[in-house]
Amino acid sequence: MRVGVLTGGGDCPGLNAVIRAAVRKGVQQYHYEFTGFKDGWRGLLTGAAVPLGIPAVRGILPRGGTMLGSSRTNPFKERDGVRRIRENLGRSEVDALIAIGGEDTLGVAARLWEQYGIPCVGVPKTIDNDLSATDYTFGFDTAVGIATEAIDRLHTTAESHMRVLVVEVMGRHAGWIALHSGLAGGANVILIPEQRFDLDEVCGWVTSRFRASYAPIVVVAEGAMPQDGDLVLKDAAAALDSFGHVRLSGVGEWLAKEIERRTGKEARTTVLGHVQRGGTPSAFDRWLATRFGLHAIDAVRDGDYGVMVALRGTDVVRVPLAEATARLKTVPLERYEEVKVFFG
Amino acid sequence: MRVGVLTGGGDCPGLNAVIRAAVRKGVQQYHYEFTGFKDGWRGLLTGAAVPLGIPAVRGILPRGGTMLGSSRTNPFKERDGVRRIRENLGRSEVDALIAIGGEDTLGVAARLWEQYGIPCVGVPKTIDNDLSATDYTFGFDTAVGIATEAIDRLHTTAESHMRVLVVEVMGRHAGWIALHSGLAGGANVILIPEQRFDLDEVCGWVTSRFRASYAPIVVVAEGAMPQDGDLVLKDAAAALDSFGHVRLSGVGEWLAKEIERRTGKEARTTVLGHVQRGGTPSAFDRWLATRFGLHAIDAVRDGDYGVMVALRGTDVVRVPLAEATARLKTVPLERYEEVKVFFG
Amino acid sequence: MRVGVLTGGGDCPGLNAVIRAAVRKGVQQYHYEFTGFKDGWRGLLTGAAVPLGIPAVRGILPRGGTMLGSSRTNPFKERDGVRRIRENLGRSEVDALIAIGGEDTLGVAARLWEQYGIPCVGVPKTIDNDLSATDYTFGFDTAVGIATEAIDRLHTTAESHMRVLVVEVMGRHAGWIALHSGLAGGANVILIPEQRFDLDEVCGWVTSRFRASYAPIVVVAEGAMPQDGDLVLKDAAAALDSFGHVRLSGVGEWLAKEIERRTGKEARTTVLGHVQRGGTPSAFDRWLATRFGLHAIDAVRDGDYGVMVALRGTDVVRVPLAEATARLKTVPLERYEEVKVFFG
Amino acid sequence: MRVGVLTGGGDCPGLNAVIRAAVRKGVQQYHYEFTGFKDGWRGLLTGAAVPLGIPAVRGILPRGGTMLGSSRTNPFKERDGVRRIRENLGRSEVDALIAIGGEDTLGVAARLWEQYGIPCVGVPKTIDNDLSATDYTFGFDTAVGIATEAIDRLHTTAESHMRVLVVEVMGRHAGWIALHSGLAGGANVILIPEQRFDLDEVCGWVTSRFRASYAPIVVVAEGAMPQDGDLVLKDAAAALDSFGHVRLSGVGEWLAKEIERRTGKEARTTVLGHVQRGGTPSAFDRWLATRFGLHAIDAVRDGDYGVMVALRGTDVVRVPLAEATARLKTVPLERYEEVKVFFG
Repeated sequence: MRVGVLTGGGDCPGLNAVIRAAVRKGVQQYHYEFTGFKDGWRGLLTGAAVPLGIPAVRGILPRGGTMLGSSRTNPFKERDGVRRIRENLGRSEVDALIAIGGEDTLGVAARLWEQYGIPCVGVPKTIDNDLSATDYTFGFDTAVGIATEAIDRLHTTAESHMRVLVVEVMGRHAGWIALHSGLAGGANVILIPEQRFDLDEVCGWVTSRFRASYAPIVVVAEGAMPQDGDLVLKDAAAALDSFGHVRLSGVGEWLAKEIERRTGKEARTTVLGHVQRGGTPSAFDRWLATRFGLHAIDAVRDGDYGVMVALRGTDVVRVPLAEATARLKTVPLERYEEVKVFFG
Repeated sequence: MRVGVLTGGGDCPGLNAVIRAAVRKGVQQYHYEFTGFKDGWRGLLTGAAVPLGIPAVRGILPRGGTMLGSSRTNPFKERDGVRRIRENLGRSEVDALIAIGGEDTLGVAARLWEQYGIPCVGVPKTIDNDLSATDYTFGFDTAVGIATEAIDRLHTTAESHMRVLVVEVMGRHAGWIALHSGLAGGANVILIPEQRFDLDEVCGWVTSRFRASYAPIVVVAEGAMPQDGDLVLKDAAAALDSFGHVRLSGVGEWLAKEIERRTGKEARTTVLGHVQRGGTPSAFDRWLATRFGLHAIDAVRDGDYGVMVALRGTDVVRVPLAEATARLKTVPLERYEEVKVFFG
Repeated sequence: MRVGVLTGGGDCPGLNAVIRAAVRKGVQQYHYEFTGFKDGWRGLLTGAAVPLGIPAVRGILPRGGTMLGSSRTNPFKERDGVRRIRENLGRSEVDALIAIGGEDTLGVAARLWEQYGIPCVGVPKTIDNDLSATDYTFGFDTAVGIATEAIDRLHTTAESHMRVLVVEVMGRHAGWIALHSGLAGGANVILIPEQRFDLDEVCGWVTSRFRASYAPIVVVAEGAMPQDGDLVLKDAAAALDSFGHVRLSGVGEWLAKEIERRTGKEARTTVLGHVQRGGTPSAFDRWLATRFGLHAIDAVRDGDYGVMVALRGTDVVRVPLAEATARLKTVPLERYEEVKVFFG
Repeated sequence: MRVGVLTGGGDCPGLNAVIRAAVRKGVQQYHYEFTGFKDGWRGLLTGAAVPLGIPAVRGILPRGGTMLGSSRTNPFKERDGVRRIRENLGRSEVDALIAIGGEDTLGVAARLWEQYGIPCVGVPKTIDNDLSATDYTFGFDTAVGIATEAIDRLHTTAESHMRVLVVEVMGRHAGWIALHSGLAGGANVILIPEQRFDLDEVCGWVTSRFRASYAPIVVVAEGAMPQDGDLVLKDAAAALDSFGHVRLSGVGEWLAKEIERRTGKEARTTVLGHVQRGGTPSAFDRWLATRFGLHAIDAVRDGDYGVMVALRGTDVVRVPLAEATARLKTVPLERYEEVKVFFG
């Protein structure tokens, strides 16, 4: 038995831990052999493969990123994608695939199994924690930890100058990182994509915080949007487009500017950006990723394909890949309401 | 309505976060008043009370320890304990109590409610994660993080000198900290109280690691015990007793010595000790402790006494206090077997 | 004897440590009394003063920012500035001032002493390490540590996606933070304000790094400038000006765009921003700031005014304030050349 | 030209950074070749050599320990030591040696050059910072940072339980780690080997701290000794000797016990141990170690043998090896007196 492994999509702390655990258990307990495909599905299309054994995965547990490289290549958008995958699987004598990735990567795995019978097991990966079939994805805890540490640091600057500090964190469609890091960092306002925010209300919280003689921290997910504010944001984006810096023309910048204008208080923005997804995984993420790896290879051994490993409470279970990618797990409004007691 | 709050037992990162959340929500949403009792049940026996308002709990979220102090005083072991508690509750005009603590503290709360009708809500706290009614207790993630970071550091020393490094971590009766930090830190042997270890097997793993040209890290819970080794350990303890240093004559020291003797390899011990339980809570623990505080005050508002808040998956629920303290949550053997693939 | 203390300019980890040390030694050994003026020179203009004793400074050593607040107010730019300062010093019965700040704050202190005989002792403070009379200023080591940790994290993301990562760090006029964090973080290109960079050379280093099958990290000080690139940068700033986001239209963004265009490799930017200056000081900065505080109060006791404390090797010495603010300490070109061996 | 490199003595964060810098500059600028000898002088005695090129030293900058291994082997204590070294240098065609180590390693290098004309350049390394010819040694800043973080954590535990916490840190002959980490961590008592301590005075500081309603942290270097207390400590060691745990029968344990007995307050000990010397180096240490490596290879190029690189202020200079190892750099008493203002 030879098992192929690939990592797709944006990098995420814990990917190496999954690879290591699957290889370690597969080789040692089941006497499998392993092939790593480089840069996600691209490696399967081009045949870029490396042998994976226990020596190759030693020492990678604490390392961020992925030793196999990653890409966003989608074989269904490539000419002859499935045929080339079949060929390369055949050439490498790979009998089953472990695909570690987010919605897109897992979607491909689901379709390869369902429509073409290519035996795939999925391992969910997203910094954003927005996959619905699992309590948590690895990488999320690390991202929240880094954001929380940044917020801790920003408090003292805010207090010293009695300024508003707006912190833009990751989360295009789901506000989990903003919610958890904002809560843990003692933010005074948290804004998430799931609920459009009212700028007057935000300014009210800011002002109320200053009245208590403290300076406010506003944590905003990159995908958060003002009520009726589309036009404004679009204008902003357009202005920046002429220079091409769309990436930084984020809601954080816009918000700081608006808060300044409306409250008369100085405001500054920090966009945490890529530091949230790099570097050594937290202990929690190493533990979760390792267990995912161990359970993924068990699914392979059981011939249980078309499934994804998932965390439920403290157990790792298997769920159909289709279910996993069916819908985004967003922050429930009652969970968001719960933390509003800390606003202002 | 006036709510009393106390923290009992060993300190633990996150205690302040619970206090802050309960006070914040209680004052702001329910217009309650709060009284803090100093040093656990002792403050209720002596009447050592401080008023708690929103200003008093500002800025305490990231701080370890407990602003209210703690002790191991058990009112049922004090003369007139219950009577004095009643008196002090009356004098302070406190209508309900939130007791934050471990098995002992919660046991007292359960009995005060069941036998004497004193309205108590419990919040579980243990570094060791060994309370059975909740998936996790706050403080545990912080302890695991600190232990993992220490193990990360020790790897490089072990490799440079090709030595065995034995790391003794907390866990008298349950091996959760050892299991999680050992797994996350890439330990080569993990020993827990739940399963007596075979010294020959341990030495086998150590030797096998050296054969792969790496140096082994052995993580051992303070409560782990060798097979048939009681006598040896008792002798060791006795020898040390003459000087009175029982605390440090731990299994870690004994193990390093035995490994050295049997394998001929140099071995060193590090006893992590109190650093595991102090300092700022991890983001996860701040989030969990805060949610526990919010849900505890909701239980008070609902008049739902004799319960404890608990984490189940990603939900905070209420469980009977009696259930919570009924039995220790130890590491299931299959969970321990799962990680043995990394041994050696 | 009553000593006034104030902190001016941008906040910086270690300010509280200076205040604590000066107060602690002044009260305990010399039996002085202390008055804190709020928000730098502004507090002296308005008479916003707080008493400072040992209890007030307990526990502030590990906290970033400044308990006294800060501002950029310059009394020489305010009507009747000096007269008002004299009045408030008289009203508070303050006999000598300790002014903790950067070039501006210390410049005011120098002039108040030289021209008006107001007894001032200076303590140098700048994140940027660009004061010429001292080997290091506190806050710098913390900033370098934070930037280095961020660079460590970004390496794994860069490698996983084989992307260029441009990290913009603080340093408008001096490249110390870029130099030290770039060196410590293993950056492949470091760009500083002291030497205009040649974009072709930068792209050469980037390409060479990719040829070695690694992904490059480019660390750029916010004040670094391309050769003959003023026009380009001015255009870029203008484009952004229409939206007002001058602050973020930094050289980092521009550079990433240009590298992408010229090398055909994907590039991303991270602007570290305010996280570099907030939060708990490093051990080195606590040590340096504490020693500065101790030596500043000794200068007051000696009646040695018009001086600033400074680090020379491992000694803290006194230098004339005038000397301290005479010229910026920039990175010597030979020091910059020394690290170029790591480029590419 | 071929240069040999070896690392001797206890491991220390930054060793890899020295190796990397020397190899990088030597290969790239001077076109040298490099040979690494394994496990310090032992590798030169046995001929255990590995080729070192730029690929071999990639990625090692942030790693603690030493890629070359280390030992305490002294060639002058081995039969035919010098002859075997000569032979192995000849066999490897090595023209000059860079020896990275502490007093012992550098002492050997000094003698090999002076008595036998073997061309050696030294790089000083000691966690303890006790080499007299350099302002700082790399590894020290990392050790101080780890100890300070531990002290930060222990404060909250001490406060919560109103206990004394004794922290034993490294420093057998010099108190630098205790002094710097104690100062940075806000310890209430710091005890160093350079001055015997008076137990009554220590208990006085402890009591005074409790009177201010705070709990004391006592930082003690492992080599600190009580006045007239030799007998007591010897007895303690003897008691433990029967079990063989001499290593842990340290002054920290003894001190906690004595403080408890005399003040009636609960006291606990934490022995930081090996975590102080492992793991990733601080930014300062990476910078210092890298500069040492760059300057060491320059000394080789200049044919300037029998010297050691050293930090003076912000400059790296060369000093005779003999001078470097002549005497221990201990904490001057006036420096120790300076911090006593924080005791109690």
